[in-house]
Amino acid sequence: MNVIELKKKYDEYKAMNLKLDMSRGKPSAEQVSTMERLLTAVQKNEDCFSETGGDCRNYGGLDGINEMKRLFGEMLGVTSDYIIVGGNSSLNLMYDTVARSMLHPVEDGCKPWSKYEKISFLCPVPGYDRHFAICEYFDINMINIPLYDDGPDMDMVESLVASDETIKGMWCVPKYANPLGCSYSDETVRRIASLRPKAKDFRVFWDNAYVLHDLTDTPDSVLEIFHEAEKYGNEDMFFEFASTSKITFPGSGISCIASSPRNIKRILNALKVQTIGHDKLNQLRHSRIFRCYDDVVAQMKVHMNIIRPKFDIIYEAFDKGFEGIENVSWTKPNGGYFFTLSLPEGTAKRTVELCNEAGLVITPAGAMFPYGKDPEDSKLRIAPTFPSCEELSKAAELLTVCARLAIAEKNA
Amino acid sequence: MNVIELKKKYDEYKAMNLKLDMSRGKPSAEQVSTMERLLTAVQKNEDCFSETGGDCRNYGGLDGINEMKRLFGEMLGVTSDYIIVGGNSSLNLMYDTVARSMLHPVEDGCKPWSKYEKISFLCPVPGYDRHFAICEYFDINMINIPLYDDGPDMDMVESLVASDETIKGMWCVPKYANPLGCSYSDETVRRIASLRPKAKDFRVFWDNAYVLHDLTDTPDSVLEIFHEAEKYGNEDMFFEFASTSKITFPGSGISCIASSPRNIKRILNALKVQTIGHDKLNQLRHSRIFRCYDDVVAQMKVHMNIIRPKFDIIYEAFDKGFEGIENVSWTKPNGGYFFTLSLPEGTAKRTVELCNEAGLVITPAGAMFPYGKDPEDSKLRIAPTFPSCEELSKAAELLTVCARLAIAEKNA
Repeated sequence: MNVIELKKKYDEYKAMNLKLDMSRGKPSAEQVSTMERLLTAVQKNEDCFSETGGDCRNYGGLDGINEMKRLFGEMLGVTSDYIIVGGNSSLNLMYDTVARSMLHPVEDGCKPWSKYEKISFLCPVPGYDRHFAICEYFDINMINIPLYDDGPDMDMVESLVASDETIKGMWCVPKYANPLGCSYSDETVRRIASLRPKAKDFRVFWDNAYVLHDLTDTPDSVLEIFHEAEKYGNEDMFFEFASTSKITFPGSGISCIASSPRNIKRILNALKVQTIGHDKLNQLRHSRIFRCYDDVVAQMKVHMNIIRPKFDIIYEAFDKGFEGIENVSWTKPNGGYFFTLSLPEGTAKRTVELCNEAGLVITPAGAMFPYGKDPEDSKLRIAPTFPSCEELSKAAELLTVCARLAIAEKNA
Repeated sequence: MNVIELKKKYDEYKAMNLKLDMSRGKPSAEQVSTMERLLTAVQKNEDCFSETGGDCRNYGGLDGINEMKRLFGEMLGVTSDYIIVGGNSSLNLMYDTVARSMLHPVEDGCKPWSKYEKISFLCPVPGYDRHFAICEYFDINMINIPLYDDGPDMDMVESLVASDETIKGMWCVPKYANPLGCSYSDETVRRIASLRPKAKDFRVFWDNAYVLHDLTDTPDSVLEIFHEAEKYGNEDMFFEFASTSKITFPGSGISCIASSPRNIKRILNALKVQTIGHDKLNQLRHSRIFRCYDDVVAQMKVHMNIIRPKFDIIYEAFDKGFEGIENVSWTKPNGGYFFTLSLPEGTAKRTVELCNEAGLVITPAGAMFPYGKDPEDSKLRIAPTFPSCEELSKAAELLTVCARLAIAEKNA
C-alpha cells in the first residue's frame, strides 16, 4: 500500500471512534478475578495470628511476618534474613531506598548522595519509565547503557563504574526486562556481581519484577544475585525488589526488598523511624493462600494461560501487517508484561501520534528512555495484558497501519 | 511508709516475677476484636468496585477512592479536595512529608530544607517520641516549647517563628495531645492559624491522631484548622494527618494527609513518582463498614467503653497510692491514649528503672522530649489501653510504689 491507500485505511479506523488502551503493564480484570479467594483468606478474629502468634491486626512487625518473609525468600532464592516485607508497592520501596540514600550514607565513611555535587545512575535502555522518573525527581544524572538480548553492555558498565566515582547506582530488571523482555545471561549476572566500582557507595537496584512471570514452557532462568555477589565480597552492593502485584492484586499485593543481612539491618534502623510496620493482615492473607512456593507457581500458570494468547494475537497481527516492511522487528520474550517493536529510525513518535488520534493509547515513544528521549526514535513498548483479545486484535491491526503510514510518510 | 518499708513492699512485687507492659499507646486485643466485620467487608470479585466504578484490585487511584476521601473529609471537617488517602500508617505520611521537604522545596522560590545550613522545628513538650525521632533522623534541630492545658506557649511560638528563619516546622497534636491529653483552645488554634513566620517555607504538622478518640461524655472540641487558616491566607501552612489505626486495626488501618488544594496538587505531583497508588481494597473495606461519619462515631463509643475503665483503674490506684505525697499530680484527659504523671524533679528516671527491674515496662523517662532529655526528669507517660484491667491494676500499684521509693530515696 502507498501513502494514499494507507491514509484511507487509517481514516477507516479513525471513523470507528475506538477507545483502546495498550499503554501500561496492567493485569486484566480476568487475571485479577482469579484471586477472589484472597479476599476471604482471613475472616475471623481467631484467624488473625501469624505462625509465631503475633496479632496481625495490631501494631508492630517492622520486617514482616515470618511466613511472608519465607515465601519471598523462596521466590527469590534467598533465606528469610535477606528479606524485609513492604507495603503494596515495590516501586515505593525503590523510591524509599533512593530517597534514603540521598539523605543518609548507604555505606560507612561515605556521604549521603545529595551531598555530592553530581551523582549518576546507569540506565540500561530501553528501560522502565518509572525507574527513570525516580532519578529525574531526585536530580540524578542518567547514563544510557545499551541493553542487548543477554543484558546490558557489560564492557561499558565495567569501564564506567571502575572509572567514574559519580556513578552511584544502576537499574537492572534481570528477568524479562521491561520493555524488551530479555533476560540477563549467566555471564552478565556474574560480571555485575563482580563489579569493582570506584564509588564505595555504588548500589545496583535489582528489580526482579518478573521473577516468576513466565509466558512459555521454556522460561528463562536467571542466576540468583546474592549467591553470585557473595563470591566477590559484593553482597552489600545489591538491593533487590519484588512484589505480588502481578501475582495477586496489582493494587493490593505485597512487596519486598531483599539485601545482605548487613544492609537489612541498616534499612530496618531507618525504617523504624518511618513506620511502625506495614499491613500484616494482607501479608497473612497472602501466606494463607500461598502456603508454599509451588502454590505461587500454580497461580503463575493461571496467569500465563490468560496472557500468552494476548501476546500471540499481536505477534500474528504484526506478522501479517508488517510483512515485507523493511527495518521492522519485534522481540518475543519468554515472559514478562511487554515486548518491544523496533521501527525504522525517526518513525516511533509519529506512529504514537497517529495511534492516539485514532483512539489507541500506547506508551509514549521515548518513555522507555531517560528524559523521554529515544535517540533513534525507533522503539515502541507493547503492553498486551490489559485489553481483551478482541480489543487487542483491533489495536494491533491499527498499530501496524499507523506504523506503516508513519514509515511511508517519512519515505515519501 | 519510709524507705525501708517501701523497699520491702517493692521487693514483694519483684518476687512476683511480673511481666507487664504499659509502654505504648496500643489498642488492646479486645478493641481490635470489635472490628471483625472489617475482615469480610469485601468478599466477592463483583464487590471490588468503588462508587465511581474503579476496580480496587487493580493499579491506580493515587489520591484514594472517593468514598474514603469523603469519609476522612467528614472526620476532619474539610471537603474531599483537601484529602489524599495513604497506606496503613499516618506516621509514614509524616515521615514522607518531611523527607520530601528535605529534598524538594515546600514553597515556590525556597530551597529544599536539606540545602539550608541549619533548620529547626518547634516541639511542644512533653510530646510524641516518634515525631522527635523523625527530626533527629533528618538532623533537624528541635526547640522545646512548653505545652500547657490549652496548647503550646503561643507567645514563645509567635516570637520565635517571626524572628528565626531557620524554623521550618512545628509539631502539633491539637486534640488529646500525646502524652498530656490536653487539647488546644480556640484562641491557641487561632493564634497558630494566624502565625506570620519569617520563613516562607514554614509548615505546621497538625497530627490529628485522636480527632474522634473521646473518653468521656464531655469531649473536647478543637477548631478545624484550615477554616481558621484561610481567614489569614495561611491555608498552605498546614499539613494535617489522621488515620483509622485506633478506630479499626492499628496495623491495617487507613491513613490520610489533609492540606490546601494547592499543597495537595504539589504532593500528588511528587507522589506519582513514589507509587502507583495505595491499597484501595482496604479503603473499600473501610468505606463499606463506615458508610458515613456517624458509623465511625458509633465505633468510637465502643472503644470508649473499653478504654475508659482502664484509665479509671489507674486514676484510682494513683489516688490511693500517692495520697499525701507532695509534688505528684497527673492529667485526666477527656480523650486520647495517654495521660501524664508528674513526679518531683529528678525522680522519673529512677522510677522507670525500678519499674523495669520489677517486670513493668513503661515508656522511658525522657522519651516525650527531644533528644530523650526531660530537663526536670519529672514526667512519665501513662498508656493504659493495652494491658487487661487486672494487669493494669497491678501495674498501677507497682508504679506508685516505685515512684514513692524513688522519691524517698531522693529525700533520704
